[in-house]
Amino acid sequence: MVGGGAGAFIGDVHRIASRIDGQFRLVAGALSSTPEKAEESAAAIGIARDRTYSDWAEMAKREARLKDGIKAVAICTPNHLHVPVAREFLKRGIHVICDKPLSSSLTEARRLRQAAEKSDALFVLTHNYSGYPMVRQAKQMVAAGDIGAIRVVQIEYPQDWMTDAVETQGVKQAEWRADPERAGLGGATGDIGTHAYHLARFVTGLTLGKLAADLDAFVPGRQLDDNAHVMLRFAGGAKGMLWCSQVAPGQENGLRLRVFGDKGALEWFQESPNHLWHTTHGEPTRRLTRNGPGTGEAAARVSRIPGGHPEGYLEGFANVYTDAALAIRARQQGKPVPEGVDLPTLEDGIEGVAFVEACVRSSARDAAWVELKQ
Amino acid sequence: MVGGGAGAFIGDVHRIASRIDGQFRLVAGALSSTPEKAEESAAAIGIARDRTYSDWAEMAKREARLKDGIKAVAICTPNHLHVPVAREFLKRGIHVICDKPLSSSLTEARRLRQAAEKSDALFVLTHNYSGYPMVRQAKQMVAAGDIGAIRVVQIEYPQDWMTDAVETQGVKQAEWRADPERAGLGGATGDIGTHAYHLARFVTGLTLGKLAADLDAFVPGRQLDDNAHVMLRFAGGAKGMLWCSQVAPGQENGLRLRVFGDKGALEWFQESPNHLWHTTHGEPTRRLTRNGPGTGEAAARVSRIPGGHPEGYLEGFANVYTDAALAIRARQQGKPVPEGVDLPTLEDGIEGVAFVEACVRSSARDAAWVELKQ
Amino acid sequence: MVGGGAGAFIGDVHRIASRIDGQFRLVAGALSSTPEKAEESAAAIGIARDRTYSDWAEMAKREARLKDGIKAVAICTPNHLHVPVAREFLKRGIHVICDKPLSSSLTEARRLRQAAEKSDALFVLTHNYSGYPMVRQAKQMVAAGDIGAIRVVQIEYPQDWMTDAVETQGVKQAEWRADPERAGLGGATGDIGTHAYHLARFVTGLTLGKLAADLDAFVPGRQLDDNAHVMLRFAGGAKGMLWCSQVAPGQENGLRLRVFGDKGALEWFQESPNHLWHTTHGEPTRRLTRNGPGTGEAAARVSRIPGGHPEGYLEGFANVYTDAALAIRARQQGKPVPEGVDLPTLEDGIEGVAFVEACVRSSARDAAWVELKQ
Amino acid sequence: MVGGGAGAFIGDVHRIASRIDGQFRLVAGALSSTPEKAEESAAAIGIARDRTYSDWAEMAKREARLKDGIKAVAICTPNHLHVPVAREFLKRGIHVICDKPLSSSLTEARRLRQAAEKSDALFVLTHNYSGYPMVRQAKQMVAAGDIGAIRVVQIEYPQDWMTDAVETQGVKQAEWRADPERAGLGGATGDIGTHAYHLARFVTGLTLGKLAADLDAFVPGRQLDDNAHVMLRFAGGAKGMLWCSQVAPGQENGLRLRVFGDKGALEWFQESPNHLWHTTHGEPTRRLTRNGPGTGEAAARVSRIPGGHPEGYLEGFANVYTDAALAIRARQQGKPVPEGVDLPTLEDGIEGVAFVEACVRSSARDAAWVELKQ
Repeated sequence: MVGGGAGAFIGDVHRIASRIDGQFRLVAGALSSTPEKAEESAAAIGIARDRTYSDWAEMAKREARLKDGIKAVAICTPNHLHVPVAREFLKRGIHVICDKPLSSSLTEARRLRQAAEKSDALFVLTHNYSGYPMVRQAKQMVAAGDIGAIRVVQIEYPQDWMTDAVETQGVKQAEWRADPERAGLGGATGDIGTHAYHLARFVTGLTLGKLAADLDAFVPGRQLDDNAHVMLRFAGGAKGMLWCSQVAPGQENGLRLRVFGDKGALEWFQESPNHLWHTTHGEPTRRLTRNGPGTGEAAARVSRIPGGHPEGYLEGFANVYTDAALAIRARQQGKPVPEGVDLPTLEDGIEGVAFVEACVRSSARDAAWVELKQ
Repeated sequence: MVGGGAGAFIGDVHRIASRIDGQFRLVAGALSSTPEKAEESAAAIGIARDRTYSDWAEMAKREARLKDGIKAVAICTPNHLHVPVAREFLKRGIHVICDKPLSSSLTEARRLRQAAEKSDALFVLTHNYSGYPMVRQAKQMVAAGDIGAIRVVQIEYPQDWMTDAVETQGVKQAEWRADPERAGLGGATGDIGTHAYHLARFVTGLTLGKLAADLDAFVPGRQLDDNAHVMLRFAGGAKGMLWCSQVAPGQENGLRLRVFGDKGALEWFQESPNHLWHTTHGEPTRRLTRNGPGTGEAAARVSRIPGGHPEGYLEGFANVYTDAALAIRARQQGKPVPEGVDLPTLEDGIEGVAFVEACVRSSARDAAWVELKQ
Repeated sequence: MVGGGAGAFIGDVHRIASRIDGQFRLVAGALSSTPEKAEESAAAIGIARDRTYSDWAEMAKREARLKDGIKAVAICTPNHLHVPVAREFLKRGIHVICDKPLSSSLTEARRLRQAAEKSDALFVLTHNYSGYPMVRQAKQMVAAGDIGAIRVVQIEYPQDWMTDAVETQGVKQAEWRADPERAGLGGATGDIGTHAYHLARFVTGLTLGKLAADLDAFVPGRQLDDNAHVMLRFAGGAKGMLWCSQVAPGQENGLRLRVFGDKGALEWFQESPNHLWHTTHGEPTRRLTRNGPGTGEAAARVSRIPGGHPEGYLEGFANVYTDAALAIRARQQGKPVPEGVDLPTLEDGIEGVAFVEACVRSSARDAAWVELKQ
Repeated sequence: MVGGGAGAFIGDVHRIASRIDGQFRLVAGALSSTPEKAEESAAAIGIARDRTYSDWAEMAKREARLKDGIKAVAICTPNHLHVPVAREFLKRGIHVICDKPLSSSLTEARRLRQAAEKSDALFVLTHNYSGYPMVRQAKQMVAAGDIGAIRVVQIEYPQDWMTDAVETQGVKQAEWRADPERAGLGGATGDIGTHAYHLARFVTGLTLGKLAADLDAFVPGRQLDDNAHVMLRFAGGAKGMLWCSQVAPGQENGLRLRVFGDKGALEWFQESPNHLWHTTHGEPTRRLTRNGPGTGEAAARVSRIPGGHPEGYLEGFANVYTDAALAIRARQQGKPVPEGVDLPTLEDGIEGVAFVEACVRSSARDAAWVELKQ
């Protein structure tokens, strides 16, 4: 693991997610660039002293040479380091599981594409919401035509934790997210808008044509957007709206997707993730539950326990890790990726950064319609 | 009453709403322009034969001359007749309670302004959702500063009943709504978008600066929009999104308003109208209930029964009627309008039509930002 | 109307309910036994001076003799007066619409049976919850076998308004309800337990075999129960639990019915009355909405407006009034009661009082199993 | 681990729960008494051949002698084996983490008490619902007096998976649960009633005085109860109702606890476990969220991720495992149990079995009031 030292929320998440299905063991880490902190964090989670690094480049080099060196690395750093770290490990044939957004600029994101093409190693982006069973179920239903041709997509991801200027009040999580150097072009768009955008794309399979975005930084002094209103036009005529915000009091992680087709509709809400609401036009709305009646194979293969016993965020995240393990193992054995494995790829990551870049570009042009650069 | 003959949903609604608080008696009507239908409908609801008309102009003339002629008229016709009918009655000093949208064109709407200015009679527009007690409560809380300075407004009104081409399948409600001659410029925007827009304005008190709209008619052959995505910029810097749709399967009358300020937030949903969700930033979200603890005078004065016994759509509609009765009586007596009366006005109606016109104009220009013409 | 003077919540409810469908006109009243209060209340709601009474016996006598005397009377007094008032009017051939519980003692309730048998007039009890459209829908589905043979019935009606000793704090509503002289044997059991019991019987059609009840008066000094736990055994083997409480903080009028059969289940909640949750065992749970897809004739005939526009408590109450009007008119015309009319009867009222009596008797015997006396 | 071989739902749950916080490693197992199945299951989850057993007694003996033998054992067998297995391991100083109910008879449960008293090892019962953060929060609030003196406890745990005679249709989970030899005296009461009872006791801290139970086996041929209605009387005067069912269509794992005091109330629902609804009497109901505002230390110490990112069943279960690890480590080091650790004990287990026994005894005596035997 690179990044994710003590106090970083997402490091723990990656560690737990990797443990849940017992497919990974964490044996080496460059958890911080400050040597003492790196050592302290590593010791606290049981990484041996001789596999503890403060320099990720050194870690990549040394682990690649070790007989029992790591096979995969998880990257949990601030955004601007994702690409340089990933390149270093990919170059040495070490599989990469990387947090999102992929990078702080589109140029950089593309640079990784070249590195990845030259490497035998896999690159996986942790758009973890795509790992929720009922999200997989929704994708399967859309693909099966259960709601007909899609007309409207409503996607939103509101949070409230940056309602005040927390980046100036000692909240570490906020500091780098509000800093263009480390976060990149986008604030809320990068941090959560990319998740929302990916989720919409993942479930609907639609391709974006253009978007028009109106971005704001409502908190005085904030440099990056904390609220974004985006209109979407998909290829083929479907339309959408995307809202993401980090200044919406009372909203914790309110990622919600609603898809309306000419035959029916689906609704999913991340804070109640074991339910999927399905309407066939002209019939009563039905509540599908994880592992409950009427659900299919795509959800079942990433479910662990019976319906009614909620699985949550960590299990969804673990599904990305476990799919990654299956994909890595298949590649090691020269086999095709097992059926059902459904991983966010480097291209998803590049598209995510392109989404942020397009939002910023559109907003700067008074919400003009723009296309993604990819 | 003009319009609202047998089979018209909204005629019954107006009649029940006017009865609930016993402030009106229905004694005359031109319920249809087809004489037999007018007579049949009038007889069915107990209007005397000699107060039954098929020509609303004649009704206005005659009732104005009668000693016990009507004091107020309810207009429940298709949109294109609202203005001509209203002018006729206003001209004769008969108060008008008129359905929305005000008219099928902005020019016409403005014409009514002149007529109204010359009349002593009142004009009231039935933006009935503003009559819900918890909407009044929300307005009171915003005005009191309970959520601070508003940053973001999310408003939506999805329905599903026009998912198919019902206007060609004998659904009367749909026929005129899908017909530009009778409905005006807007489809969903006129029918429900105006409600959503008014509700947002009513509760927040914000003034619109500009909007950018992307309108669609998803159903093949449909001439007016059945889905609209609108971005809003309010004077003072607040931003908003408005979505209205009549092709959203599973949505019945899903009018939902969410307002986020720098100190807190409010959420209200028409299908569960007795609850208002209130968050003070940094505290748990609270569920305010109609006539429950923590609610104020504005809601109490339009509530009839204890909390937990739901009041619904008809009671909200009745609140507009009863406020209208209070305002009419005050005017008759030369007194000021009683405190708390809060009625949608002609100006609201003109602004609603201006909203529709602006949506259509913006959409025609590829969702360019436009201002309302008023 | 007898009772229901100024300040009595239920008087207004009856008046609005009787107006909603325009089937009744309120022309006479003995709204209070205190003459000034009776006059003031009557004047306030537009009852003519010469039809205003303070003595209900006199009212019955005089109205029966009047050429245009009332055809029906609504009784909204405290419980102990229901029977004497009803007898007086029934005796004179005036139809009676009476609030529940029927009486303050079983002996009295039975006495009314004799009076009713001798009268040509109808007696209707306002178990208003049975008027909700989705309750009618539930009854229709149970009768149609949609959930199979019933095994378990869970019914509850919690409130919170008597959590403190409000009967000693000037809350009028609480004073008579907490007074055995006026309320009868039961407190919460009489006031809301009878509603819950009736609803369970109305929907399921099951006959009670025995019950075992554990009653409490939690508030110090309170003489009548404010919380009741009751186990039910129905004829045929189904079992049930009933909970009613007036000391449950946060509960307003939380009447909830759940019925489980061997093929499926139904759930309905009074505070969200336009929804009915239906499960066919082995399929996803469906949300039926009033006037939405999948609902039948029983609900449709008592619905006024489209699905998604909530009807509430007053409309449900009005359905009882309107069904009463239809039944009265049929009787006046010597015709059978129109299809679909479904009114709580005197026998339901007697059974309700028997239910209260049985609860009290069982509880006094340490929750022994007892049968209803009827 | 003993029991929990391939196909047993609860074995996987224990394994994941033990992994989530990285406090346990699974190195030995007697996963089945059938040697081939034991080996196959062990191999599948990575247990070494020489630590694989089919005889748990042998496992206890050998592991106790091994230098690096297991320090703790998880028991996931059918109920009747819990006690014999636990005794064997406790006898040898190996800590025991055991599934519930503790045993299939009260006599046996007590026998374990003696064994435990002689052992230095810990015994932990996995009443996992007590591990949910918001359950801990509820307990803390009750203890702090936030809802005042408790009057009423409503607890229920309905499921639907045994609505049909699945025990005769090849559903393994159902087979032993419906078999008195393996399950014990109680069916639903033992399987889920014990959870419900424990949860009520855990949160409220109340002591049971007496109960009256009405048990049924609704499915023809079923020998053990599949539905139980229980009235509760707590020491000090509080009352309660408990319902558990395995024949309630549409209910998955509907464990719900509601506690009403003289100052307020709490409500928690297992299928939406990150929320706790709190009412202070006379104020609006508040929704507390895990790691959200207004929550305390007891919940925070067992939470992993920010509010709004749901934690679920497995994390709640993991909290029991991690608390167990903390308690075991403290005992190994001769230190007191760390503050906040809150584990279900052997006494809880005995009380659970006593609860089942009392339900059966009461029901056999026509729901007479009985006390628990302990």
